[in-house]
Amino acid sequence: MNAKPPFLSQHASVDENAIQPLPRSRKIYITGSRPDIRVPMREISQNPTPTQKGDEGNPPITVYDTSGPYTDPQVKIDIRQGLPALREKWIEEREDTELLTGPTSSYGHQRLVDPKFSSFRFKLTRQPRRALKGRNVTQMHYARQGIITPEMEYIAIRENSRREEMLEAFKAQGKDIHRLLSQQHPGHSFDAAIPPIITPEFVRSEVALGRAIIPANINHPEIEPMIIGRNFLVKINANIGNSALGSSIQEEVEKMTWAIRWGGDTVMDLSTGKNIHETREWIIRNSPVPIGTVPIYQALEKVDGKAEELTWEMFKDTLIEQAEQGVDYFTIHAGVRLAYIPLTAQRMTGIVSRGGSILAKWCLAHHKENFLYTHFEEICEIMKAYDVSFSLGDGLRPGSIYDANDRAQIAELETLGELTSIAWRHDVQTMIEGPGHVPMHKIKENMDWQLKLCHEAPFYTLGPLTTDIAPGYDHITSAIGAAMIGWFGTAMLCYVTPKEHLGLPDKNDVKDGIMAYKIAAHAADLAKGHPGAQIRDNALSKARFEFRWDDQFNLGLDPDKAREFHDETLPQEGAKLAHFCSMCGPHFCSMKITQDVRDYAESVGVSEEQALTQGMAEKAQEFSQTGHDLYKKV
Amino acid sequence: MNAKPPFLSQHASVDENAIQPLPRSRKIYITGSRPDIRVPMREISQNPTPTQKGDEGNPPITVYDTSGPYTDPQVKIDIRQGLPALREKWIEEREDTELLTGPTSSYGHQRLVDPKFSSFRFKLTRQPRRALKGRNVTQMHYARQGIITPEMEYIAIRENSRREEMLEAFKAQGKDIHRLLSQQHPGHSFDAAIPPIITPEFVRSEVALGRAIIPANINHPEIEPMIIGRNFLVKINANIGNSALGSSIQEEVEKMTWAIRWGGDTVMDLSTGKNIHETREWIIRNSPVPIGTVPIYQALEKVDGKAEELTWEMFKDTLIEQAEQGVDYFTIHAGVRLAYIPLTAQRMTGIVSRGGSILAKWCLAHHKENFLYTHFEEICEIMKAYDVSFSLGDGLRPGSIYDANDRAQIAELETLGELTSIAWRHDVQTMIEGPGHVPMHKIKENMDWQLKLCHEAPFYTLGPLTTDIAPGYDHITSAIGAAMIGWFGTAMLCYVTPKEHLGLPDKNDVKDGIMAYKIAAHAADLAKGHPGAQIRDNALSKARFEFRWDDQFNLGLDPDKAREFHDETLPQEGAKLAHFCSMCGPHFCSMKITQDVRDYAESVGVSEEQALTQGMAEKAQEFSQTGHDLYKKV
Repeated sequence: MNAKPPFLSQHASVDENAIQPLPRSRKIYITGSRPDIRVPMREISQNPTPTQKGDEGNPPITVYDTSGPYTDPQVKIDIRQGLPALREKWIEEREDTELLTGPTSSYGHQRLVDPKFSSFRFKLTRQPRRALKGRNVTQMHYARQGIITPEMEYIAIRENSRREEMLEAFKAQGKDIHRLLSQQHPGHSFDAAIPPIITPEFVRSEVALGRAIIPANINHPEIEPMIIGRNFLVKINANIGNSALGSSIQEEVEKMTWAIRWGGDTVMDLSTGKNIHETREWIIRNSPVPIGTVPIYQALEKVDGKAEELTWEMFKDTLIEQAEQGVDYFTIHAGVRLAYIPLTAQRMTGIVSRGGSILAKWCLAHHKENFLYTHFEEICEIMKAYDVSFSLGDGLRPGSIYDANDRAQIAELETLGELTSIAWRHDVQTMIEGPGHVPMHKIKENMDWQLKLCHEAPFYTLGPLTTDIAPGYDHITSAIGAAMIGWFGTAMLCYVTPKEHLGLPDKNDVKDGIMAYKIAAHAADLAKGHPGAQIRDNALSKARFEFRWDDQFNLGLDPDKAREFHDETLPQEGAKLAHFCSMCGPHFCSMKITQDVRDYAESVGVSEEQALTQGMAEKAQEFSQTGHDLYKKV
Repeated sequence: MNAKPPFLSQHASVDENAIQPLPRSRKIYITGSRPDIRVPMREISQNPTPTQKGDEGNPPITVYDTSGPYTDPQVKIDIRQGLPALREKWIEEREDTELLTGPTSSYGHQRLVDPKFSSFRFKLTRQPRRALKGRNVTQMHYARQGIITPEMEYIAIRENSRREEMLEAFKAQGKDIHRLLSQQHPGHSFDAAIPPIITPEFVRSEVALGRAIIPANINHPEIEPMIIGRNFLVKINANIGNSALGSSIQEEVEKMTWAIRWGGDTVMDLSTGKNIHETREWIIRNSPVPIGTVPIYQALEKVDGKAEELTWEMFKDTLIEQAEQGVDYFTIHAGVRLAYIPLTAQRMTGIVSRGGSILAKWCLAHHKENFLYTHFEEICEIMKAYDVSFSLGDGLRPGSIYDANDRAQIAELETLGELTSIAWRHDVQTMIEGPGHVPMHKIKENMDWQLKLCHEAPFYTLGPLTTDIAPGYDHITSAIGAAMIGWFGTAMLCYVTPKEHLGLPDKNDVKDGIMAYKIAAHAADLAKGHPGAQIRDNALSKARFEFRWDDQFNLGLDPDKAREFHDETLPQEGAKLAHFCSMCGPHFCSMKITQDVRDYAESVGVSEEQALTQGMAEKAQEFSQTGHDLYKKV
């Protein structure tokens, strides 16, 4: 609705807010078995703990880093150039692809040569790549042949970011490592399969079994490889994309860099407005994370929104167009079968998936089976020529609590399981999309059905929202469901922003959505007993307990917000050293009392527990003298 | 830290933002068996659904209303007068209380007569009330004698607010009531004990069994009675209160009216600053919801923060002081026994409860058993003379994921169970406070322990927070845990605001905390199969599906925010009637397609399902003609 100035490629610029390193954080790289496997991580340094015997160091905490080169001050960012193609050599070495002279899709070719688009087209000099005839270039295909690709090794290192340091960090903190480990491997944890250290061979094996996917199109060599599977860290996806009413190319690229800064593991470009093709190119060329799309949206634009005019031929051309741009996974609503549409008639909210309803309309108009279903094997042929992964869309997902886990949804899920088997016969990587709106008591059964019907292919769920009554707060209604389904086994959580049901998310909404979902994913990692997940919680809690305010902020998901909230009441820099906070004030603080107990124990040379259990009576008098003045003056 | 202008009682005024009725909402009253039982509810009216046959009405939706007389335009609010004493007659009729000539606590008396405080003292003309010697005035005592009090009848009506209309509303919406009921009584729901209609006798029985409490001090006749128990709607508490650094009396009263406007069922005044006594009086006299406190905070102020100087005598005086003001429940940390303190020594974050650490310090300084434990029976005597309920404090709750469900916490919980039995011997109403920080996989066991060890006394939990790593977002980390533990059986959820760990909540934070917890409580009601809980979800989803934007906003927890978000993209009033939204734009909308299918079915005079299943082939051609122009012009 708001008129926007035209986007011109020569003016494209990076969002300055998205390229500063986070406070006290630096980018580190861990090198694998070959020098070009350099896995980025974020290292957060901590202040020492002041004690009576002098400062005691606190180890830096390393965290998984999705932000790409943007937060590395050594890298010069120019979004007109795009990111370096770090996987290019790996792809070339496999000698199973060829460079094409240009796009082989007719639409891709047409957009490339039309001068109308040249002012805002990304200037890519690299040629698109495709599998050699008869070859299959998917990571699943390699995995099933026993090949450990550089991508797999990269992922193994990346997933271990917090594991190898676990013992060390804990020893330094004087904490009970056995207790920690037993906490993390409770008898009732969902999946005991997560090994203490992820090996490249484990990555390969999970991909070969179909339990995990590595979205990595050969035309997106810029990505830092990542994995989606329930025996790995839970991932989150952020949706961006303009609509006919919406934002510009520049804004969408900014939303992408913003989303990955705060922890988006993949980004879906759901644009439905004009210039979808060019917007996508800008996003992919600048994205270090896999990009997903819903190709039917663009196909619909090509027929001016008339679903009944969709054809397999133009849809196929769209798939090739996007595959040659480098899209890493496609949402394909092949499970919306003609026979299932009547099952939605008695629903409260019918069909709420955009893709699902496009296909439903096509099916009804032609009274024919969904052409994505009938042409599924042909789609597989395209997927394996570029290594695009399937995200099998849940076109019949429930749009309200009333419709949760109904016949329509389960019927479609069964078909998605059947399609998974077909995709796997082609060694095409596959994940399954899930709901939607589901009350808490139906979440576990939803997850269990998915695992059973879809043969343990990774589940990728939107929320689910656990109630319908809070428009404006659906990042929260859904974070509840997302945390639970993540614990039960969902591999990737698609975020929901506060604007869900109400409008398109802006940058603030993107961040709010990411935060809610980083919380859900991390809560799930903790509950699953993911090795090492708790290190960050422990470090932050220790900092909190020791009044290391800066460390508490910096170890959190959003240091900026934590600092801002603290400073609303106590803005002075000195307050960052204060042994109290604004909640209780300087006259009383519970954390301080425990610290006094510990200090006292230390001063008399016994362990804390001994100090308290042995001879407490005789110490009482002494304590009441030494402990009288509780609060160090700041 | 910020200097505030002095608060003067003659200038005390109500927060104008807190007294407007919510949009399209009106206050209704349901009268019970006697004319002075008038139970307030909020009725949200809806627009009709336009159909081809003309408008189809949508029934008004009635929701539980915590906001008190503030949102009733018929009532003139003057916070200097306080609210009307609606329970006064009920209390008098029982003829088991006497009016005192003034406060019987020495501190209460001293504050009343000291002219220093007269400029900001609430001018209460009513005398305090106490049980006649030898009488017990608790709701539990009446319940155990088989008496159904007016409070119990009031609550029965109030808890049914959404039940009686269930059948009717659903018939009007053309929905399958059998399906709804079977959804709400799933085989695996936690508690099948919730009856379809709450009767006064059921309320009595639950209170008699100790499974529910009715916090209702005889000196707080202003309250609209409510119940806390797991076979009723899940309740939420909002904490307010100034600290030494904090806010004024006026601000605290505003936080209270703000908290109940958005759904706070009880409010705890956790003030630790000066003028605690006067602040509390202002809050109680203007509060239609029960008020809880932690008396040890004030006791500590009286000894200038020196925990070791606390004595039973002055604590007892504090209890009487507050009981005679009308506090409805007291947090009493009687479970922090001397022997348990050593169990906290190896914790990551020691003792994080303020009350718990005050008592721990006292125990250590004197090497004596906690005086709240040793004097527990005497405390019961005070409680039953005013009907103050126990909220047995979890002074050893975990302050970090690392410390969750540890020996210290469980040891204390066992003692709280023992104390519950003692309280019940005195017919004193009792609930149990719970954690804190607990990862998802340990929440259920926490709840199960509480039910077992504390004989099914209501559980009242803070969150729990499911991860430590998100300071600034702890309303979300904890809403996840709160929803789950509410489902498992917690009766009341104590909110956590975004400022938790960082600062004192302001009004915005109070609202954000309330919203997160209303979501958690409602999600729990849905999962527990609470009869009628889903009506609001269904009504909102129907409105959403039918593009009744205003109804979608108004039926939500926060109509203001929903409208504001919508209007950021589509501010024109006309857009509220549009059959599309900013997410997909006017060219495509999934909900619209389903509606087209239905309209089509209707136009040819068959049911939707029939239209789709029978003769779909022959209709296809027809559909593609009539359905071609999908979007009604607005």
